Order: sequence, then structure tokens, then C-alpha cells
Amino acid sequence: MSIDILQEKIRMYKNPTVVGLDPTPDLVPQYLFEEAKMAAGLGPEAAALAYENFCKGILDSLKDLVPAVKVQTACFFGLGGAGISAMQRVMAYAKELGYYVILDCMRGDMPETAEVLARGVFGTVEICGESFSPYACDAVTLNGYLGGDSIRPFLPYCRTGDKSIFVLVKTSNRSSVEVQDLLSGGRVVHTAMADLVNRWGADCKGKNGYSQVAAVVGATYPEVIKSLREKYDRMFFLVPGYGAQGGSGKSVQYAFDRFGHGAAVCASRSILGAWQRGKSDGRDFKERAREAAERMFRNIEKYCMIM
Amino acid sequence: MSIDILQEKIRMYKNPTVVGLDPTPDLVPQYLFEEAKMAAGLGPEAAALAYENFCKGILDSLKDLVPAVKVQTACFFGLGGAGISAMQRVMAYAKELGYYVILDCMRGDMPETAEVLARGVFGTVEICGESFSPYACDAVTLNGYLGGDSIRPFLPYCRTGDKSIFVLVKTSNRSSVEVQDLLSGGRVVHTAMADLVNRWGADCKGKNGYSQVAAVVGATYPEVIKSLREKYDRMFFLVPGYGAQGGSGKSVQYAFDRFGHGAAVCASRSILGAWQRGKSDGRDFKERAREAAERMFRNIEKYCMIM
Repeated sequence: MSIDILQEKIRMYKNPTVVGLDPTPDLVPQYLFEEAKMAAGLGPEAAALAYENFCKGILDSLKDLVPAVKVQTACFFGLGGAGISAMQRVMAYAKELGYYVILDCMRGDMPETAEVLARGVFGTVEICGESFSPYACDAVTLNGYLGGDSIRPFLPYCRTGDKSIFVLVKTSNRSSVEVQDLLSGGRVVHTAMADLVNRWGADCKGKNGYSQVAAVVGATYPEVIKSLREKYDRMFFLVPGYGAQGGSGKSVQYAFDRFGHGAAVCASRSILGAWQRGKSDGRDFKERAREAAERMFRNIEKYCMIM
Repeated sequence: MSIDILQEKIRMYKNPTVVGLDPTPDLVPQYLFEEAKMAAGLGPEAAALAYENFCKGILDSLKDLVPAVKVQTACFFGLGGAGISAMQRVMAYAKELGYYVILDCMRGDMPETAEVLARGVFGTVEICGESFSPYACDAVTLNGYLGGDSIRPFLPYCRTGDKSIFVLVKTSNRSSVEVQDLLSGGRVVHTAMADLVNRWGADCKGKNGYSQVAAVVGATYPEVIKSLREKYDRMFFLVPGYGAQGGSGKSVQYAFDRFGHGAAVCASRSILGAWQRGKSDGRDFKERAREAAERMFRNIEKYCMIM
């Protein structure tokens, strides 16, 4: 099962972290753009190549330390088709190096569209006797605002065991309160969403009882993490918002079960942009990213002992 | 203002419809794939070229009848970078022909990512002294589950007048009740979302008082359309779910104000797949699409007289 593979990797590395690959023009060192221009000329192709080389450098640097990566579609989408092609290569490279790969696409679609998306990201698109699988990924992030029939097209892939989905329950941003914390009959909307996630994933469980239908719960709301963990002892949590957004080892401590399983904590800018903290021109971005990932690891380890 | 341009076009054509370009392997006639293979060889490039030619054919066929199109990212994304490149060309072609172009991306992102996405779809991505604007669009669809700070990065583009956003309020699928109809202190979640949409768009209004921050409300819930229209007489509604999903001219009648303004109704499969209803091999897909779009127009016209 995909969720077991993630948990195995976490146990093997003794490190429940996920690095977010969210390249932006300011996070990628200038010299990589210059090099990419020499190789690919002007235009979005060069920018996409710089993103690709930056992400591959991060992947090389963290490969024996970090078990999983999350790839941010929006960043690559901003460069058009050239960006998405670069993202495909980054994902394939991450799989090759042994990472568990999460495609962060944050979509919530109409059932017919969700069907198309599920096939595109998890299955194979069959056209004229040919079939393509463009994205080498183990999981995607989804938005459940449209309800069950927008999620159901992804479930067959979770049931067969190969894939997982991470549904947004309580996001780490400030404004998440505006919709997700609306009170509704004794519970709040994000609790109702967690109940749905639990129901959708009832028949997609891995060997430790954790479901392949998992929840996204922000590191910036430790009390929500705690109460959701109390209510759902076998729901896997992807916990973004560590680092730049304010989450810490302490704030994510309740995400884990008593064996240190059941959650993965995600950081992006604090790792990718670690080189910017000194007077570096970015040529040391790999080393700085590794140091930042090691700091994150040690910080979380204080509160979560993985057995 | 972008929303005025849409309303002008609707008035000029006397037709408040939007055609959804959601190409899938079964909606695109086989002969287009064969032709694309001859031109582009095997692989996703050929499939993407077939999608492109199909969409361009639809655009040619409806150009003096339909004022706006909505392009479904997920369908093109399923073919990887080649698909997204084809989508960029389809969007550019639609703009060239004078359509109002909506990019259906259905995203709801963290503020930092929303910033990146807003720049990618509405602004220009600046890298190393170069700038790109990959997507020729007037508007995007967004999911507001993350609240205001996920929407705010798009607002400057709405305020300057060039762009609009369509935020999911009540979607046309069955399961939309599961989250969107949860009761919360005398209102339901989708009403709360409409209230937020209204607030976000307060300072982005066009000349008739309609805001550039608009709502998506499904054709399959006529009573919701009616009550939202009663509450918000100047909120623009994008109404999907006409045709294949069950919406009709009658069910969308309350979306409009008394001048027939304030809404656009969207259909996709019933137009794109109209050629499949007979014994056609699809070579007549343009004519069949036009007939279907004309039927839709006449059906809506019965209930909505545009002045």
C-alpha cells in the first residue's frame, strides 16, 4: 500500500518530513538561470530548465535524509507547458532516487473532470491505442469542497493500494478560519471534512490501519491537530506550514501516534531558500538546504521518537 | 472592466452562454487523432495536437454565436507539458477570435502559492530580465475553501479592471450538499461563501455595479440561484451544469436580472459531444456543436430576454 511505503520510508530514515518543491523566481539562485539561458536560449524553456536543475539539486542533496517530496504544480504551471514538462522530469527523477512523490495540485473538480484528472495523474490516459502516464507520483492533494463525487474517482487507485490522496481539512493559513471554522451543528466545517475523509477512506486501509485517504492539517493550528488526532487515531496527516509559516517541532507533536507514526511534516521555503539567509550567491544552495532539513529533523525529533 | 466586456459581448450576441472546452479521448473524433499522428508522430504530442485542433474547430464554428469559452485545465494537464502547451495555443486562438476566455483551474491555494498562480495566469512572470504571460485569459475559477488570503493575491488584477475571478459557491454536482449545504448559524456554507465573495469584490465593480469577483452557482440548483440572486442583485453568476448535467433554460432563469444581465450559463459535453448523438464519425463535429449551441441559446432565450 502506498501509505505503508511512505510510513516505511519515514521509519527507515527516522525522519517524518516532506520537502516541498515550490520553485519561484526569487528562490532559485541567479546563476542557475544564467546557466539555463546558455543551454536553452531565452524564453520560458530556460526558466523551466533552471527550476528543474534547482529541484534536482535539492533532490540530490536530501536523498538519504528526507523520505518524501511534494511538488507544487502552480509554480511550474506559471511557466506554461515548458514548466509542466520540467515538473514531469523532476517527478521522474525524484521517483528514481527513491522518494515518495506527492503532486500538490489542490484541485476539487466536478465528478467528470475529477475522473479525467485521476486518470491523468494516477492511471494511464489511453488515446488511439497508445497510453501515457505523465506524472510519476504516489499521491495528490485534493480540495473536498465539492463533496464525495469529486473525490470518488480517485478511490479505486487508493483501494488497489498504489496511490494515496491528501484532502485539505484544515489549512495552515490565517484565513482558513473563514470557511473551515464555521460552526455547524456542534462541529466545525473542518471537522465535518475530516469525518468525510474518514468515510471516503474506510475501505482503503494499509497494514497499520492507516487509510490511503489522508488529511492535510496545518502545523500552525496545534490544537486542531491534537483534537483531530484524538478523534481519528488511524488517519494519516500531512502537516504543511512548518518553518517559514510558523510551525515548529512543538506545534506538530500531536500529529503522531505513540510510535511516532501517522504523520509527515512539510516545509518548503525554509529549506529551498536556506541559502538566502547568509551572503551567499546561491552556489551553496544544496548544502544550505541540507543543513536546514537536518535542523528541521532534529527539531521534530525532540517531540517525536519514531519506533 | 473585464466583467463589463463579458456583459457587452453577451448583449451584442444576445446570448448569455459559455462553451466549456473540456476535451477528453472519447469526445474528440477518432479521425482527428489519426491526422494528428501523421503530423506529430506518436506520444502525448499527437494527442495534444488532436485536442488543440478539436478545440480550434469548435471555436471557429461558434465565433459569431457564443461570447465566451471556459478552458478546462485538467483535460490538458492529463497529457503533461504537451497538453498545457496546446491549451496555451487554444487560449491564444480564442482571444484572437474575440472570445472572453475563462481558465477553469478550480484551485484554492496557500497565499504564497496563490501569489505565484495569480502572477502566472493574470500577470507576467519575470525571470532574469525576461517576462512571460503564458495564458491569454480574462478570468479564472477559484475554490475559496482556504478563505480570503488565498483569494487576495488575485484582487489587484480585478481592481485594475483587466481580470475577473469566479469563486465556487454552490457547485452543480450532487455531492455539493455534503459540505456546501452544511448549516451554520442560520445560513449554509455556500451562503457564507457568497457573503465572502461579496466582501472580496466590494471594490472591484464594473459600470453596472457588477463585481469582477463573481460566483459559480450550478444550474442544477435553481432554488439556490434564486435565493442568491434575491440576496445579491449585483453579483455576477457563472452557471455551469447546463445540458449533460441536467440544467435547462428554465432552471437557470433566476440567474439573470430583469434586463437579462448578470449571468452566463455554461455547457460543455452537450456541445462538444453533439456529433455523437447520430451515426456520425465526427467529421461533422463543428456543425453539430453549432446546432447544439443554437438549441441551448433558444432554450435560454425563452426565459431570459437580453436588453
